[in-house]
Amino acid sequence: MSRRTVVIGGGSAGTGAAGGVKAVDKANEVTVYTDFEDIAYSPCGIPFVHGKEIDSFQTLFLATKEDYVRVGIDIHYNTTVTSIDVPNHTVEVEGEGTVPWDTLVIATGFKYADPGVPGADLDGLYYVKNIRAAERWDARLDGVKQAVVVEASPLGVEMITALAHRGIETHVVDPNPWALGEQADPDIVAPVEQAWRDMGVHLHFNTRLEAFLGSGTVTGVRTSAGDLPAELVVVATHKRPETTLAKAAGVKIGTTGGIVVGEDLSTSIPGVYAAGDCIEVVQGSTSIPLQGLTGSHAYAQGKVAGSNAGGGSRKYQPVYVPWGMLAATQMVGGVSFGETLAESLGIPHILGVADGISRARYYPGVTKIRVKLLADPATHRLIGAQMVGGEGIKERADFLAMAVRVGITIEDLATMENVYSPAIGALNEPISLAAQNALARLQAK
Amino acid sequence: MSRRTVVIGGGSAGTGAAGGVKAVDKANEVTVYTDFEDIAYSPCGIPFVHGKEIDSFQTLFLATKEDYVRVGIDIHYNTTVTSIDVPNHTVEVEGEGTVPWDTLVIATGFKYADPGVPGADLDGLYYVKNIRAAERWDARLDGVKQAVVVEASPLGVEMITALAHRGIETHVVDPNPWALGEQADPDIVAPVEQAWRDMGVHLHFNTRLEAFLGSGTVTGVRTSAGDLPAELVVVATHKRPETTLAKAAGVKIGTTGGIVVGEDLSTSIPGVYAAGDCIEVVQGSTSIPLQGLTGSHAYAQGKVAGSNAGGGSRKYQPVYVPWGMLAATQMVGGVSFGETLAESLGIPHILGVADGISRARYYPGVTKIRVKLLADPATHRLIGAQMVGGEGIKERADFLAMAVRVGITIEDLATMENVYSPAIGALNEPISLAAQNALARLQAK
Repeated sequence: MSRRTVVIGGGSAGTGAAGGVKAVDKANEVTVYTDFEDIAYSPCGIPFVHGKEIDSFQTLFLATKEDYVRVGIDIHYNTTVTSIDVPNHTVEVEGEGTVPWDTLVIATGFKYADPGVPGADLDGLYYVKNIRAAERWDARLDGVKQAVVVEASPLGVEMITALAHRGIETHVVDPNPWALGEQADPDIVAPVEQAWRDMGVHLHFNTRLEAFLGSGTVTGVRTSAGDLPAELVVVATHKRPETTLAKAAGVKIGTTGGIVVGEDLSTSIPGVYAAGDCIEVVQGSTSIPLQGLTGSHAYAQGKVAGSNAGGGSRKYQPVYVPWGMLAATQMVGGVSFGETLAESLGIPHILGVADGISRARYYPGVTKIRVKLLADPATHRLIGAQMVGGEGIKERADFLAMAVRVGITIEDLATMENVYSPAIGALNEPISLAAQNALARLQAK
Repeated sequence: MSRRTVVIGGGSAGTGAAGGVKAVDKANEVTVYTDFEDIAYSPCGIPFVHGKEIDSFQTLFLATKEDYVRVGIDIHYNTTVTSIDVPNHTVEVEGEGTVPWDTLVIATGFKYADPGVPGADLDGLYYVKNIRAAERWDARLDGVKQAVVVEASPLGVEMITALAHRGIETHVVDPNPWALGEQADPDIVAPVEQAWRDMGVHLHFNTRLEAFLGSGTVTGVRTSAGDLPAELVVVATHKRPETTLAKAAGVKIGTTGGIVVGEDLSTSIPGVYAAGDCIEVVQGSTSIPLQGLTGSHAYAQGKVAGSNAGGGSRKYQPVYVPWGMLAATQMVGGVSFGETLAESLGIPHILGVADGISRARYYPGVTKIRVKLLADPATHRLIGAQMVGGEGIKERADFLAMAVRVGITIEDLATMENVYSPAIGALNEPISLAAQNALARLQAK
């Protein structure tokens, strides 16, 4: 029996969900509501257009509006859902009135954490999010000589690099002692920070934002270490789940502030599913709930939630969260936990560290790669990893996330086979060296 | 109790073995005999010096002769071992007489398969092997306008590209229907062959070598498809185990022509170990014996054999053989078996294929990546893989080799998490897409 599904949100999770609903049964009806003018573009590309690595915003679009029409997905742009009525199975839609649903997918995404300081209503505070706004900000960047980035979060890291590439004097204000303080270890980001300094970026770590300064338009920021002038401030604070509608409807919210979901991505309310940055999911080794993962996670969750909303029976696996990004001249990445996070969460671990190389030492383009592995002291199973280097970080993070998931040990990794070919791989794989180092540390105890 | 170990051969396996002997007990004595003038360089780099990607042969050296002296490893250069006397535990060494050993490591490497055609004694036939000879050949290459490479074997592939880079009109003569015919599938090497054509390389597949032509110096080759002029011929035939000494000493030889070893890399004769290209080892999923792996394998085997020869008790794991190389503009690689090899060996398999990309579609430097996965029809465990693309092939091959070893299934890979970040990884990981394709094919059945 076909269903009528409403999806709230047009990001990765929402578009994934819409596709999931139709994939189960073409006769299913699905309507997507999005506050924005567009759908199916890659917001992750925005910093790189600002940085001039990518020519135009237009290239960020993955599909056209017509593509969705063609597959029978009905998308309402610039359309806000104002409330969810659970007993009556309806949503209230601005300009459309009451719309019924058999199943609902909440894919309302994230909002930036409120910096909680005066001046938050000034013009010139850039919260990177939708593409049309980004186009307007991009034009404005041409006139900016000095900018501040608030927090070297993952988005902050990309924006710092983009602004510096663009020749703007860039200052970073971050209360943490180093970049990516919430996920990365200091030794992993040290080469990134050095690269920024080499690019002329001014780093103000251990520094709290106290106010946005200016009247009407921002002219700077006040920090715990003094004032910094700025014509533009990128506010790249932590991403928080956007759950206003869900909360009002009585959907259960978890400790991270994200919507609690089952393995089928159903919420606490029958017929209501959720996916993407608005939910929390469980890290597989520790059962710790996590929120604010990647567009890849959001899309995969959307497909599962949409499939189930459409009458399917798919499950979403616990996550191990491979992550990675280009940060200045370096690629940084990892899986689940680094040393700092494991210690702050009280997760017991043994450690292995190695500095290897990406190709034969003598081959052009060879770069350093630092790999840190964390393993469970009892079982020796991998539980986390952190890496920095010039190439091959994403592929290694994908590998190690699977290694954590299936229970591969440091003994396995210490004896792994690896491709050796001068132009593409070194005699000794850095992952294997790090695992060997972990074993050597154990023996030394 | 310390031992006196003799190592025959100074390649990756021999130097690894010497280090292994000393690592177990510094008091162990170890003597390495090599026919060549040098030790501890990377022969794998030679084609890239010829191709001018690498500046000089000097950069290929990994360690100096003094480094070995310092750690107490006694190396005899330009010194040939002429026989092994098993009952008396000695070797006969040219110019040194009879040398005793408590344990022996045979690391005699490979020889190129005899092309078995007339003219094999002509000047101008280049068998790429040792670095001093390569320096002389490199000078000679400056005067060469037209060359033939016999067989697009792994070494052949690198030499074809190197000669073409050097502006030499290059012809390839190979009895197989496509390049890397012994390990790669035709769709995997198709982009490589196209890249060669674009570089002006002439490909003669399905073509037998019938003779080297010339008197004194080679002037061309006769093939089943006609004569080709050439001032130089690179003979890159299959690598065969060099087992002359071992055979004469009564060491057991296997079906591949390689020395049979146990998991401790002991041969059929007590106290005699073997490692590297002269041995055969077992592929883990199928127990098929393999020979002629990589320098990385040889080095790892050397360490195990040397360790055991020195009194240790290390085991060498079954192999799954991740492989890869730069071939023209492409990276090709894989694990264990491709489709062609699995079919010719009668290994039952299911298949998944996907054409993915290495970064976000819109990010500069993005390249296509084709992934093929082979899995066991009963268990769905991965048994092999083949890949071609512009980046990230080595890292994926390492991952998939571990996946084969630990029994990861296509279901696991279809649901793998992956890093998505525009500059370093695409929304959909090609490995995952290939696994999803395998599942879709199964469902369609």
